[in-house]
Amino acid sequence: MASRIVALLSDFGLDDWYVGVMKGVILSVNPHATVIDIFHSIPPQNVAAGAFALGASYSYLPPGTVVVAVVDPGVGTERRIICAETAGRTFLAPDNGLLSYVFAGEGQGRVVSVENHEYFLKPVSQTFHGRDIFASVAGHLSLGLMIGALGPEIRDVRRFDVPAARLSGGHLAVRIQWRDSFGNLVTDCGAKLAAELKLIWGSFKIAGIETKSIPIVDSYESVPKGDLLAIVGSSGYLEISVREGSAGERLAGFISGELVLEKA
Amino acid sequence: MASRIVALLSDFGLDDWYVGVMKGVILSVNPHATVIDIFHSIPPQNVAAGAFALGASYSYLPPGTVVVAVVDPGVGTERRIICAETAGRTFLAPDNGLLSYVFAGEGQGRVVSVENHEYFLKPVSQTFHGRDIFASVAGHLSLGLMIGALGPEIRDVRRFDVPAARLSGGHLAVRIQWRDSFGNLVTDCGAKLAAELKLIWGSFKIAGIETKSIPIVDSYESVPKGDLLAIVGSSGYLEISVREGSAGERLAGFISGELVLEKA
Amino acid sequence: MASRIVALLSDFGLDDWYVGVMKGVILSVNPHATVIDIFHSIPPQNVAAGAFALGASYSYLPPGTVVVAVVDPGVGTERRIICAETAGRTFLAPDNGLLSYVFAGEGQGRVVSVENHEYFLKPVSQTFHGRDIFASVAGHLSLGLMIGALGPEIRDVRRFDVPAARLSGGHLAVRIQWRDSFGNLVTDCGAKLAAELKLIWGSFKIAGIETKSIPIVDSYESVPKGDLLAIVGSSGYLEISVREGSAGERLAGFISGELVLEKA
Repeated sequence: MASRIVALLSDFGLDDWYVGVMKGVILSVNPHATVIDIFHSIPPQNVAAGAFALGASYSYLPPGTVVVAVVDPGVGTERRIICAETAGRTFLAPDNGLLSYVFAGEGQGRVVSVENHEYFLKPVSQTFHGRDIFASVAGHLSLGLMIGALGPEIRDVRRFDVPAARLSGGHLAVRIQWRDSFGNLVTDCGAKLAAELKLIWGSFKIAGIETKSIPIVDSYESVPKGDLLAIVGSSGYLEISVREGSAGERLAGFISGELVLEKA
Repeated sequence: MASRIVALLSDFGLDDWYVGVMKGVILSVNPHATVIDIFHSIPPQNVAAGAFALGASYSYLPPGTVVVAVVDPGVGTERRIICAETAGRTFLAPDNGLLSYVFAGEGQGRVVSVENHEYFLKPVSQTFHGRDIFASVAGHLSLGLMIGALGPEIRDVRRFDVPAARLSGGHLAVRIQWRDSFGNLVTDCGAKLAAELKLIWGSFKIAGIETKSIPIVDSYESVPKGDLLAIVGSSGYLEISVREGSAGERLAGFISGELVLEKA
Repeated sequence: MASRIVALLSDFGLDDWYVGVMKGVILSVNPHATVIDIFHSIPPQNVAAGAFALGASYSYLPPGTVVVAVVDPGVGTERRIICAETAGRTFLAPDNGLLSYVFAGEGQGRVVSVENHEYFLKPVSQTFHGRDIFASVAGHLSLGLMIGALGPEIRDVRRFDVPAARLSGGHLAVRIQWRDSFGNLVTDCGAKLAAELKLIWGSFKIAGIETKSIPIVDSYESVPKGDLLAIVGSSGYLEISVREGSAGERLAGFISGELVLEKA
């Protein structure tokens, strides 16, 4: 049987050895695993951001991938760890809502509570379950372990509602879900609503912040270099961008919380 | 047949999931590919810097490597994507000059325009060809796909002249091509000219900036700790350095643009 | 024979191509090697920090791993490069104390001086032995090369004493060995002494800095969110932390050098 791929997402950053030892533990259990990083720059302990990032990325991982997501402010407390089979992949995460976007897109699938110490690294520390539980269990899953061996099936997992902008009275209140390193601002306005807005509005203003009209376009080259635009980005949401520039810098100070868009 | 190695260079940084999903897409096409990062910290959309970094690194990748370079301010516009076979490796890049150093060192080799949608991830987004085209095509190339299958052969690729300092009237105007994270300043004065300068000058001053004489040396230990020196660095160019310190900090404010060197 | 795993630790950062070309060189020698990063964010040229990080991570790497550690302010000087077999793994490092924690934990084992140019990349640069010596030799070791082939056995390696806090007159002077990206401050008070302090002190104050009593606990949830606590962390030392917050920020300005702890 081909070894499975293990993909890691966390808020551990790359300025410590934490991700490295997770890989060491996975390869200690399964020397033939292929381990890749989704990324590790989730803002520390920000479960909502981690959930969004996972939602934007999981569907590009190969079928069968063991996806390990660790944003875990509750480490060392009584919070559960869950393992879910959905979307053709296997997800390991703390039971804190981190899989909310995955579940929203794919259904919750089969979920177990990870409790079987047999697959943990011993002794289990109080502060680094990423190494002692997540990585070790992921190694075993990559060897073909069935999730039923990890613990009892459960239904009451923690989930939050995935944000979704809705038109109301000619206004669209959007939340910025992510600001990427190019300065693109990813809203919670989905592709379908964005297509509708493109038809009925064409362009919009950001109430109280940007009086210039921002066109909804299909490609960056529809506007001159340096101009603001809105486009459905690679994660399937409307993004506010600047062609060959940074919308995050242009709109600095307004990029978190909610923006209200209105027809220009 | 052994699977081939895929090496990635981009300006995507590691603060988003972009590099991670590229790996996911490559492994979805070829689960046995070995994917490595050259690095992803090219200054955003800086094609010249990306071209230099690729020039400094490609020759250390195994023969047969599929090298994917994405610094692509033109994504979503009509710019072409090219695939070149040269230097015993296969290069995928936007047609914007990113392969200029490779071509300068090795010749242009055989180049095709990447147009065959059969090897793309569908639907192709307007904003993330790294995922939808580059990664997917790289996965197929790593399986042994011949580049002729990707599109028609072309000759008129975009290239810029690789900078190369030249002595003129006792002065050497050098460009800083890279400042590394140790603070070493990599000039465009090649190893051969540097050897000549060592003979005829021995040391130099930086006109208008640093009156202290900077010796051209063969090893860091030729100067006391904390002193400025110049040495042919690992990328084959003269670098201005401080022994166990940072020339970038010492000469802060003068590290971009051109410096004029003259005999000390 | 299964290919061995190569694990890399350095102060090269990820903002240059240095780590990427090391991987290229390793895979050029052994295309079937599995290369992982421990991490590369050791503060530049800080051997003590690198030694601590290696000590905190090596035991989680699979048995047989070739561990390459490069924090090397003496590159290009006459300092030796050593290869040590200990702890069931093979370590390559400059002879500057970088293996001090490994040796302290496991004994020095068999050590050779790496001198056999046959396994180097030619020409060897004066500035980047990570690429030209360490990576190339690691590739050969991952193919099964015996360390005796690299050079003569030696005994007089450079080591420093691993710091270890000791109680004296009711005070404990601790050194901060690491501040992680969550803001946890890792002291040099080992787990055994920490258990003792928990019994006899229960909590402590930081002389001259923090008058609030800091409890020594077994899990973060023993204190309210935002409170200071001390806990034996994942590297086996007492850490000063803030629950769901950053002790580094709370105690900013006092996080390097020595702290004096006393019973609260």
